[in-house]
Amino acid sequence: MTSTPAEDKLVFDTKWFQVAARPFAGSSEPLYVINTTDFVSIIATTTDGKMILVRQFRPAVSRKSLELPSGHVEKGETPEEAARKELLEETGYVADKFEFLATASPAIGRFTNKMWTYFVPNARPTDDPKYQVEAGVELVLFNGSVRSLMLDEEFFSTVSHSALFAALAHGRVNLDKA
Amino acid sequence: MTSTPAEDKLVFDTKWFQVAARPFAGSSEPLYVINTTDFVSIIATTTDGKMILVRQFRPAVSRKSLELPSGHVEKGETPEEAARKELLEETGYVADKFEFLATASPAIGRFTNKMWTYFVPNARPTDDPKYQVEAGVELVLFNGSVRSLMLDEEFFSTVSHSALFAALAHGRVNLDKA
Repeated sequence: MTSTPAEDKLVFDTKWFQVAARPFAGSSEPLYVINTTDFVSIIATTTDGKMILVRQFRPAVSRKSLELPSGHVEKGETPEEAARKELLEETGYVADKFEFLATASPAIGRFTNKMWTYFVPNARPTDDPKYQVEAGVELVLFNGSVRSLMLDEEFFSTVSHSALFAALAHGRVNLDKA
Repeated sequence: MTSTPAEDKLVFDTKWFQVAARPFAGSSEPLYVINTTDFVSIIATTTDGKMILVRQFRPAVSRKSLELPSGHVEKGETPEEAARKELLEETGYVADKFEFLATASPAIGRFTNKMWTYFVPNARPTDDPKYQVEAGVELVLFNGSVRSLMLDEEFFSTVSHSALFAALAHGRVNLDKA
């Protein structure tokens, strides 16, 4: 959770986010900011060069979406711990190395939280016999290029775009297949 | 504004956004969705190959941010009309061609709205003598590569990342300078 200035006033509260009225210099009306937990997005690739994606129904937009694995950073967790947990829970994959690439602001005009982006090479299926697939989340091993993924109409979440673009700019993935 | 299902129940209202409780199959608790207007983001380049950016203070994240020009689609406007208006208001630039590239969801777990992305080649300063710079918005004519912009710590808004990545995937801009 991002810390909030003392002058913020809580005006609406749910289990998942809070709306606060923040006094705003030069305006008689406050800015309504939305506080929620940070989250992680993960660009994970397999040893044979596939990208690990998830497909799920998103009720806020009433359609299925293809995305990078992602999830919230829970209290007491580091972002890397959250990334390891989310990759396993959503996809059943594990890896040795989780490389931090960048943070970004997912909704800069309104949300106070951050996204933490990790690149994960050489991911492999867990050998834990107790692992259970998360309900409602479909694993997709994507074998196309980064460009073709970005042009795929099912891949329409800006936070997935941002994280994948970070991996591209850092030279961890290529725009087109070699 | 995205249309909302009849079963949504308004639970918190501001001039800028509404929170609605949406019944959610398989859960005794609703999903709280946030309804707000769609917005546009614009990748505009000048005839001499610079990208038109804006720098502004963002109170929700308490820092200055370098971003693509963007703004809300007001009632009665088409997204292209909003893009033309926002580019002019925020930067003083106009252009003949606004090419629609893609839509995307800016906060897929919670927000119902869409971003509309436009590519604008050959933008030029307006010759309208009445044009006034928007208060608090600084024009930046960026001369570096797309990669260097993506790696710039001041360029940290995921929606700007997403729109720029769309222009890259569509071949309208290059990752590195030729």
